[in-house]
Amino acid sequence: MLAIGIDLGGTNIKSALIHPEKGILEQHSISTEADAGLEATLDRIASTINKVKESAELPVMGVGMGAPGMISLDRKSVHNPPNLPGWEHVMLADEIKKRTGLDALIENDANLMALGSARFGSGRPYEHFIMITLGTGVGGGIIFNNRIFRGATGAAAELGHVTIDYNGARCNSTVTGAVEGYLGQRFLSQRAGELIAKEPKNELFIRFNGDFEKLEPRDLSDAANRGNKLAISILEDAGNKLGFAIVNYVHTLDIRKIVVSGGVSKAGEWILKPALKTAMEQLMPPFRTDFEIIPELLGNEAALLGAGTLALENI
Amino acid sequence: MLAIGIDLGGTNIKSALIHPEKGILEQHSISTEADAGLEATLDRIASTINKVKESAELPVMGVGMGAPGMISLDRKSVHNPPNLPGWEHVMLADEIKKRTGLDALIENDANLMALGSARFGSGRPYEHFIMITLGTGVGGGIIFNNRIFRGATGAAAELGHVTIDYNGARCNSTVTGAVEGYLGQRFLSQRAGELIAKEPKNELFIRFNGDFEKLEPRDLSDAANRGNKLAISILEDAGNKLGFAIVNYVHTLDIRKIVVSGGVSKAGEWILKPALKTAMEQLMPPFRTDFEIIPELLGNEAALLGAGTLALENI
Repeated sequence: MLAIGIDLGGTNIKSALIHPEKGILEQHSISTEADAGLEATLDRIASTINKVKESAELPVMGVGMGAPGMISLDRKSVHNPPNLPGWEHVMLADEIKKRTGLDALIENDANLMALGSARFGSGRPYEHFIMITLGTGVGGGIIFNNRIFRGATGAAAELGHVTIDYNGARCNSTVTGAVEGYLGQRFLSQRAGELIAKEPKNELFIRFNGDFEKLEPRDLSDAANRGNKLAISILEDAGNKLGFAIVNYVHTLDIRKIVVSGGVSKAGEWILKPALKTAMEQLMPPFRTDFEIIPELLGNEAALLGAGTLALENI
Repeated sequence: MLAIGIDLGGTNIKSALIHPEKGILEQHSISTEADAGLEATLDRIASTINKVKESAELPVMGVGMGAPGMISLDRKSVHNPPNLPGWEHVMLADEIKKRTGLDALIENDANLMALGSARFGSGRPYEHFIMITLGTGVGGGIIFNNRIFRGATGAAAELGHVTIDYNGARCNSTVTGAVEGYLGQRFLSQRAGELIAKEPKNELFIRFNGDFEKLEPRDLSDAANRGNKLAISILEDAGNKLGFAIVNYVHTLDIRKIVVSGGVSKAGEWILKPALKTAMEQLMPPFRTDFEIIPELLGNEAALLGAGTLALENI
């Protein structure tokens, strides 16, 4: 049996045909056209599902879908997803069923990254791990006993909205000093820009002057690889803060394997090594045993694999 | 069937006979005499168990025991419990069985407070809640699906060792800016003392001058009740920090009922009201729904009730 995995974003609707062992058999992407409104987007989702279903050489048993925002505990509806204006409260599974005849389950996109990692990625060896997604924002997913830990209402693991400095700034979170305000791509680039602006001779200043918003974590790690001290210190500082956040998750959950994915994690060892150093200094000694930070090598495929897995294991 | 609940501390061994519905039938306390060494303490534990067992009018099915420090995943051994010198790694359940003939299970004391609250205290109405114990230190227990959430190795919910200020002080924790450094009784009193020392006319200065270590949270709340502005602001500040810590737990776990117990919580509304205010300001809007902070009215009995319950439900 196969399942269809969907990754619904504000810009693109990604879809894939998922095999329980072989993973992604085929993959597509179309634009969301969120501005055209709810009905139009639902139709676009349905048409991509129907197309993938028709191309499948084995029966398709259902659809798993990752969406931003809050998902209901029964995994059938979404509530005010960011970047999808006019959605408010949508019975998404019912709408899919009506349009495609297929049963569907919805889950938070970071939770699906974790599930995809658990079955097909770096998380495979671990019964319990914490996934941190360092992208535009910072998301999280908790795998406990090989399953997504969902909390009381399905909203667990909002790991970007954990504070490490109650006196800190409020950046794109209701929480002052939230992790997302330090590790989210936009804020990381912004802080980097402020520091680079003070060093007019730095190669990063020369390259990005006046347009630091274009600066990506990869640019910082490339510069760090060339020995650029400023880039190294910016990434070290970000890694240090990630380390503190990780200590908070680990002391709360007693889960000691941390899988890191997303665009910012492409800065790789320049962030993950200082994060490991800080965490090992700050964790209570018993928690240091078996503690590890592991990069997720799957990119966005993890979310599609997780979406397909959600359907395969739960419908 | 009855069970025996034991609360093993560095100073006292408390014991109780526990009925699954009626709770504590009788209760005792003897000194631990930790200085006499491991064997002597084990004998004292066994003799108190045997005495309680003999007095029981119904059969006793086993022993549940709360201990400080790290407990093994199988709940049979303890590892380096604080305040019990020379214990290192002790197969506590086996030692009890050898001396009393009764099966025993050990659990972290804060986890047992949570379990006691879940069956006999303020936690009773909730399938999921977070227990925060504000005592000398700050401990925690997570009840998820009516059971203790133990994490990968049984060490989950070290909630006092979660940072809210990575630049903060390191107080009795490996973690800088850990909650325990603000809310633990000793640190709260110490900070209060520093502030009171600057106000020689304040009633608290006159009463505790030079001996602020004797100042207890209750003294602050009593002064607050009399309108002492300094006491009010000290407790508000502590409550505010507790609020930030709670936001971290709630965004990680999606568990929205917080039960607070322990000596510091005796300062009651003076701490819990500002904690609630901060949490409601900082939580992401969906997490504010059904969010509550509830005081635990059971005192240390919660730990004994939890210990008995542990045995009754798991042996």
